[in-house]
Amino acid sequence: MPPSEVRIWGLEGMPEINPGDNLCETILAALRQRSGTTDTEAPRRQVDSSDAWVRPGSILVVAQKVVSKAEGRLVDLETVRPSVQAQEWASRHDKDPRMVEAVLRETKRVVRMDRGVLISETHHGFVCANAGVDASNAPKGTVVLLPEDPDRSARELRSDLEEALKVELAVIISDTFGRPWRQGLTNVALGVAGLAPLVDYRGKVDFYGRPLRATVLAVADELAAAAELVMGKTLGIPVVVIEGFQYQPGSGSGRELIRSQEDDLFR
Amino acid sequence: MPPSEVRIWGLEGMPEINPGDNLCETILAALRQRSGTTDTEAPRRQVDSSDAWVRPGSILVVAQKVVSKAEGRLVDLETVRPSVQAQEWASRHDKDPRMVEAVLRETKRVVRMDRGVLISETHHGFVCANAGVDASNAPKGTVVLLPEDPDRSARELRSDLEEALKVELAVIISDTFGRPWRQGLTNVALGVAGLAPLVDYRGKVDFYGRPLRATVLAVADELAAAAELVMGKTLGIPVVVIEGFQYQPGSGSGRELIRSQEDDLFR
Repeated sequence: MPPSEVRIWGLEGMPEINPGDNLCETILAALRQRSGTTDTEAPRRQVDSSDAWVRPGSILVVAQKVVSKAEGRLVDLETVRPSVQAQEWASRHDKDPRMVEAVLRETKRVVRMDRGVLISETHHGFVCANAGVDASNAPKGTVVLLPEDPDRSARELRSDLEEALKVELAVIISDTFGRPWRQGLTNVALGVAGLAPLVDYRGKVDFYGRPLRATVLAVADELAAAAELVMGKTLGIPVVVIEGFQYQPGSGSGRELIRSQEDDLFR
Repeated sequence: MPPSEVRIWGLEGMPEINPGDNLCETILAALRQRSGTTDTEAPRRQVDSSDAWVRPGSILVVAQKVVSKAEGRLVDLETVRPSVQAQEWASRHDKDPRMVEAVLRETKRVVRMDRGVLISETHHGFVCANAGVDASNAPKGTVVLLPEDPDRSARELRSDLEEALKVELAVIISDTFGRPWRQGLTNVALGVAGLAPLVDYRGKVDFYGRPLRATVLAVADELAAAAELVMGKTLGIPVVVIEGFQYQPGSGSGRELIRSQEDDLFR
């Protein structure tokens, strides 16, 4: 692969994920199937990277939905008793009051509650519709919450995968969020492990030798967005591998991508 | 290339762009150099896509900066007479009043003017810092404005490239914008030609056969973000080619990505 080339491929053959499933084992099984071997010990023996199931330095982008489901972050709506606030708002906007209640429980601060849209700041600090609570791709009568700590989810998955595959990797847990000013949703990084999510070009110089304007790039969000191109919404590809991107290794954290209220001119 | 694989490569060898340069010819020269041929007529004869300089269905993502420079969208700060408003704000925040004036001229509406940061809605409708006016990678004493009509720039470049290369392509003109709530900048699409910038999954069903929640994905922004991973800020790679993404052909327009004020809960 030439130096300035990035390759993005979707991991096909991932089964439906259920609470308690081991996500690492499921990913390994799909990688094994892809490599065409039945030898479960193969990755442990691969010191030569050329026949590795995943190239060293790859980034695995994993859709939040499968992480949440494996971690059991499902709520059975039958068990939810909506508050008066949830009931009032739900009836005004033709929503399920139990769904509204589930959203409010995941909400630290309501950012907007207008025209039937509920934008929350979650307990993690993410600002998104419905606090990330979602009924699509969830068993009937249930909704899926965001992972409790997406960074921890990313760290654990990375550690398990690295141990099994014997290569250095980074992991991003991604979800699809809307944003102000621009139409359409894009994938962003909720949890990060093994790479620096922000790359700081400040102090570097341009073609003319002059310092670049303040430029800190959110590469983890760009990687998540790139992965979404292969995931699609209906393709059933929740795991995507990105090869060839020269990331800055680091402990990393999705929290670095959250703009604090004091820093944000738009809250 | 497997079906669910996307390949992103940077076009090396692009020279510095100056006003009046023909961007299409410059890109063709760099593609020719990459293919290792001196035969300038080669692409016209390529009916077999396997030895095409660019695969059919590729997307060229071009940094706004080189488009603006080729189009002569440079302002010599010596010629700018700052208004009283520009002078006052500049002196309060230790800015060049001529730069502030250049920004205000590109501004339809000041969104925020706070803590030394000027967020504008441009005449196109983009919301970004300094109305996209930027001194980095510009000759000393000048600043670069956004293209007058990025969609037109994209359409013209696409048409010229398609005629020369005899393959179907899409073109995105990209720039790096900040956003509320999240740290770091990401690349977005300003101008689009040949692809639908938004992909609408509404009405499609999930794994359980239930309709997906309202999901319209801003794929043009995700493509721009993916391209930035290869561009870098200091690498001098203003043109990136994305292969393998099954886009929806269409006339397309970057304007579709602009959320109207009435639709936007955050203005």
